[in-house]
Amino acid sequence: MARDRVRPSAEALAKLPVALDAMGGDKAPADIVAGARRAADDGVPVVLVGPPALVGDTFGLDLVECTEVIEMAEDPTAGVRRKKDSSLVRAAELVRDGKASAMVSAGNTGATMASALLRMGRLPKVTRPCIATPMPRPGRPPAVLVDSGANAECTMLVQFAQMGSVFSAERYGCADPATALLSIGEEPSKGTPLVKETHALLEAGVRGVRFIGNLEGRELLGSPADVIVADGFTGNVALKTAEGALRFAMRLVLDVLAHDEETKAAGDVLLPHLLAAAGELDPESTGGAMLLGVDGVCVIGHGSSSAVAIANALRMAYDLATADLSGRLARLTAGD
Amino acid sequence: MARDRVRPSAEALAKLPVALDAMGGDKAPADIVAGARRAADDGVPVVLVGPPALVGDTFGLDLVECTEVIEMAEDPTAGVRRKKDSSLVRAAELVRDGKASAMVSAGNTGATMASALLRMGRLPKVTRPCIATPMPRPGRPPAVLVDSGANAECTMLVQFAQMGSVFSAERYGCADPATALLSIGEEPSKGTPLVKETHALLEAGVRGVRFIGNLEGRELLGSPADVIVADGFTGNVALKTAEGALRFAMRLVLDVLAHDEETKAAGDVLLPHLLAAAGELDPESTGGAMLLGVDGVCVIGHGSSSAVAIANALRMAYDLATADLSGRLARLTAGD
Repeated sequence: MARDRVRPSAEALAKLPVALDAMGGDKAPADIVAGARRAADDGVPVVLVGPPALVGDTFGLDLVECTEVIEMAEDPTAGVRRKKDSSLVRAAELVRDGKASAMVSAGNTGATMASALLRMGRLPKVTRPCIATPMPRPGRPPAVLVDSGANAECTMLVQFAQMGSVFSAERYGCADPATALLSIGEEPSKGTPLVKETHALLEAGVRGVRFIGNLEGRELLGSPADVIVADGFTGNVALKTAEGALRFAMRLVLDVLAHDEETKAAGDVLLPHLLAAAGELDPESTGGAMLLGVDGVCVIGHGSSSAVAIANALRMAYDLATADLSGRLARLTAGD
Repeated sequence: MARDRVRPSAEALAKLPVALDAMGGDKAPADIVAGARRAADDGVPVVLVGPPALVGDTFGLDLVECTEVIEMAEDPTAGVRRKKDSSLVRAAELVRDGKASAMVSAGNTGATMASALLRMGRLPKVTRPCIATPMPRPGRPPAVLVDSGANAECTMLVQFAQMGSVFSAERYGCADPATALLSIGEEPSKGTPLVKETHALLEAGVRGVRFIGNLEGRELLGSPADVIVADGFTGNVALKTAEGALRFAMRLVLDVLAHDEETKAAGDVLLPHLLAAAGELDPESTGGAMLLGVDGVCVIGHGSSSAVAIANALRMAYDLATADLSGRLARLTAGD
């Protein structure tokens, strides 16, 4: 199955569609296809990938047919190895073969990573791809958490810092983004051996990275750093803890609003404002997470992605592919 | 400085005071001494430890005099090694020498751990002490996160599960507490090598631990498990992330309340209820974190501890010491 990566010219890239796994996500295919239609209406070329009988109405969009689907709960590596004609594997092949500019899936995250990695391959000199997830900062562009879960075990974090910096600049317009290392104290002596070693390397100077020191978990939301670097285990625990805590707080507030007639009346006034504030935090409004370090653009949507989230993810994938994100990443990590 | 640990009888223990580091905490000594007075009025015997000139008015409480203070930002191990006549080291020695039932400090956490470890020693067969921190569960007793920061690097988590279970039962009355392992997915195959190995060991059965599987960060607050096990790095990042996210959410809500005249009026109705709900989450209302695995009771208060928090911490330390928590821990980890 290993074939050469086909690289379209910049002009050709802008005309290529983004390949969307029509069967990925809790609300697939209905909301996924609806999101694709929305993005297409907004000028993003899209091609759906999936089994025609399962996808159903494509609302006028092109469909690349396949016969299999990797389920949400399926073992990622085994799924990708066995289901060579699945929507995820086919989407990754469209990018590899120069027939799509990027791929998007809100399905099985592990299988999305495995498909992209096995079919597109890694960028030269990138040891391990990582997932960059936007962390909300009200009134400012999101910070980026790398790695938020691609690697449960990491032996080097410096490339994550480099790739996260390119992504922050390209995607969120942070010029010369500030990078911090997630740890358990500000002092360089704090943390695991990997964190301490990474601190020393970043402090000594790494190309493309402006290091501002360690950052503690309490600053993960509203972060002073534009890029937050962690191993994938810690990053994933922290990301989910932050999500869970915000949801927990939201439930507490809703409980307070439901307390009695008086609080309900006050709630009627506040609820629209609260929902607007919560909406700004919604990870889906930012378009999704990004797999950095594979040879192509791969955007990973939240499993619960709505049509709006999918449309945002497709726009993000298209913009990053046409801006040659992969090329920029490759030049930085290769040291050219 | 190594001397034999003196073990008072159960009756003697109940009459011994809890040794309180009068100089530990952001609000020391005023709020610390006020908290001690409060606890003493509530029937908890307390002895203050600190330099008389710095402590000032003891409000009628006994003071064990010393000449030094380990500052909040000071290097813990060096501080304990150099400042042998500091309030922290002296407090730990009072426990070792059978002159206090327990020690409490809201000062330098690392130095508190080091003092307790070096002066009281470890319980037999305990590889590494760990910090147990209560995690709020509205309407239920808190869950316990072990280790929340004693060890940046861990090679075994099973004893944390055992000690956390004893603590949950003893402190929060959770009969047969349910224990979960903090990871990045429910499957046993998820996580770091240490997490996977620990999962296998707990699954196979460990004395005193009822294992219910992995738990993700999003369930850290309102946890279905009574005991949540993590290495100290991950646990500390998760704890601070949860604290930070709750504070972040609180700021958002306050911003919404301040939006305009109408929301301010609604806020007047809701604020007392919101503050009550937030108060339930306040880590200080639960009395503080606990160092498990040293040969004695050592309670670690939050740096920002108020007088109420200190009084709660003293009550907690006294109750656990008189209930012979250390003896129970020692019997379980020793396998007797």
